[in-house]
Amino acid sequence: MKIITFLTDFGVHDSYVAQMKGVAAGIISTQLIDITHAITPHNIREGAFILQSAVPYFPVGTIHVAVVDPGVGTDRKGLIITTPNHVLVGPDNGLLLPAAHLLDTFTVYEITNTQFMMSSPSNTFHGRDIFTPIAAHIARGVPFQELGTQTDTFIDLSFGQAVYNEKSVTGKVIYCDGFGNIVTNIAGMQLLKTLKFKKKVMAFIGENPYEIPFVPAYGFVKKGTIVGTIGSSHFFEIGINQGNAAKKLKIKEDETIKLLFS
Amino acid sequence: MKIITFLTDFGVHDSYVAQMKGVAAGIISTQLIDITHAITPHNIREGAFILQSAVPYFPVGTIHVAVVDPGVGTDRKGLIITTPNHVLVGPDNGLLLPAAHLLDTFTVYEITNTQFMMSSPSNTFHGRDIFTPIAAHIARGVPFQELGTQTDTFIDLSFGQAVYNEKSVTGKVIYCDGFGNIVTNIAGMQLLKTLKFKKKVMAFIGENPYEIPFVPAYGFVKKGTIVGTIGSSHFFEIGINQGNAAKKLKIKEDETIKLLFS
Amino acid sequence: MKIITFLTDFGVHDSYVAQMKGVAAGIISTQLIDITHAITPHNIREGAFILQSAVPYFPVGTIHVAVVDPGVGTDRKGLIITTPNHVLVGPDNGLLLPAAHLLDTFTVYEITNTQFMMSSPSNTFHGRDIFTPIAAHIARGVPFQELGTQTDTFIDLSFGQAVYNEKSVTGKVIYCDGFGNIVTNIAGMQLLKTLKFKKKVMAFIGENPYEIPFVPAYGFVKKGTIVGTIGSSHFFEIGINQGNAAKKLKIKEDETIKLLFS
Repeated sequence: MKIITFLTDFGVHDSYVAQMKGVAAGIISTQLIDITHAITPHNIREGAFILQSAVPYFPVGTIHVAVVDPGVGTDRKGLIITTPNHVLVGPDNGLLLPAAHLLDTFTVYEITNTQFMMSSPSNTFHGRDIFTPIAAHIARGVPFQELGTQTDTFIDLSFGQAVYNEKSVTGKVIYCDGFGNIVTNIAGMQLLKTLKFKKKVMAFIGENPYEIPFVPAYGFVKKGTIVGTIGSSHFFEIGINQGNAAKKLKIKEDETIKLLFS
Repeated sequence: MKIITFLTDFGVHDSYVAQMKGVAAGIISTQLIDITHAITPHNIREGAFILQSAVPYFPVGTIHVAVVDPGVGTDRKGLIITTPNHVLVGPDNGLLLPAAHLLDTFTVYEITNTQFMMSSPSNTFHGRDIFTPIAAHIARGVPFQELGTQTDTFIDLSFGQAVYNEKSVTGKVIYCDGFGNIVTNIAGMQLLKTLKFKKKVMAFIGENPYEIPFVPAYGFVKKGTIVGTIGSSHFFEIGINQGNAAKKLKIKEDETIKLLFS
Repeated sequence: MKIITFLTDFGVHDSYVAQMKGVAAGIISTQLIDITHAITPHNIREGAFILQSAVPYFPVGTIHVAVVDPGVGTDRKGLIITTPNHVLVGPDNGLLLPAAHLLDTFTVYEITNTQFMMSSPSNTFHGRDIFTPIAAHIARGVPFQELGTQTDTFIDLSFGQAVYNEKSVTGKVIYCDGFGNIVTNIAGMQLLKTLKFKKKVMAFIGENPYEIPFVPAYGFVKKGTIVGTIGSSHFFEIGINQGNAAKKLKIKEDETIKLLFS
């Protein structure tokens, strides 16, 4: 059975998500899996990070509908992005692009064929009226070329890359997760080539220097200890064992993180 | 595959919703879709609005279990409501009625056959012990007549209708959604016959007059602007582009909303 | 179709739960049902109670993945627990044990076969990299003996048993649910043999004495009344009709609850 995933900023109080699932189920029987609906309203960057962190774990053929869409009802385009193994559907505001880059080569289509949308789509809810039916018709096997027009014009979005020199690496915070762990854009595999796990490493978190252990997992240190590790997203992250590092260190997205190698 | 939906005020912290799904899955394999479990505890009216807003988007044959049930364990009845395309199952307290009215002609059965309930149902959780197994047996094809007895006695619930005169329309707030958008009972299609989208319209929101743009979508105005539009539930609603109108304007359910036509 | 359930303390904001579901779906097509992801972070005891309260309602053959795992990445073991009708998969920290005891005789396996894990599992997310793929391979029919090694060494966890004497029963609070109802370890069936439903019973809740009605359901008393009943988990519980007893009475887990029989 095909899978359609959903990521939105709609919350779980209203019935918006259920309306999308009802529409999908009316077109084709698929497995419907939530990525999250708790994206901070209108926060495209946060949605893009969560989407990128989830998509690699889904099987070949999965179709991902993502809707964080402050521009809904204006002339912003709707996109289908095809990658070797997955399809992404959502607004043209950067939301889909980090996932697309991660999933390798991709092709972008502007959604144009009103035949595969809900009849008379609302101006406020393209997630239900356009993106979900398009995704469901893709699951049915309708070719991309029938649904839209290939395009090279779209809004891109990237979390940047950490910068290495002989003595240090400098990156930034791209996300603070629900446990308060501070995820950076410093890729774990690359970091481990230069910096081995050890008892103490000097880290600049925002303006402030901290001497923290760099360990394979949070459980390696005592409860309450600030610690660096390679998180499950394969990025360097800073956390507090059984505590909330983002709150304690008052760290937000885009803060600079610098690690000294000696 | 048949679909059973669930709407409750149980929250997602406890396992009550999972218990219902386990019971359903033990009777018949169906697709289980959440509408929401975040209804304010015991708020029948809010549950009724969310249920009504979701059901029209589900395919023919869907069975909806709704449980906002402060009277559980007393002598309040349990109902099956059949409509041309859907079935509603839940307590007799008005919760199911707005959805039933929206879904066209309907027939009401009082649930009476204990054979299709869990053996020795608890007094506190009819959602799991009565409504869910009844819904699952309906999905299996058990006729309504075997599950209950047709009745004309049930508690009705309606959100009322907006009142038009030559110069204005007066309705009321029926719901404030998770974005803070204020949904009224002024039907969008009817309103558009009299009032076209335009730059300014005079609106009385509660006691206070506001001159607001009436536009096809939130994205048509600058961030932070108070605006009127036709929402995705097809009702007139008032919002703030990328803001929370219900909080900002301190508006709650049942407040009067009046729009002047000139 | 087989069912895999998920219980975690991951919340619904991040994509961790979706990553687990993607991994499961890549191994075998099953029905994926959430128990909850709102366990208080790192609260093994709370997770164990919620898991135990949900599992009996699932059909034969269901596989339950539970992850409340502060020791992830250290040398704590991973377990498969087989019972006559269900399988439990998760960390060796007590989380699975109350459910195992409830599900009757059980056998414990330590997960050892890396072939059935994700390749190079992370140190921070065994839920995705070990427990979920193991559960999915169990659903595929891989024998337990191929996945791990039977063991008699594991961390046990129990909520204790209420103590009866001629004049009273003394138990403790094991959980406060989302409605604020205070669930105790006093088993309902046993209590009803000694104490019948009646208008007044003397209850010591923590330090304080209360004269409360003992009734079949919350709806039997007026809104706002403190009341004792047998809850849907089949334990004696104390609640306030349409109110939050845990907050009002300032009761937390482990508080003593004593009921006098006359």
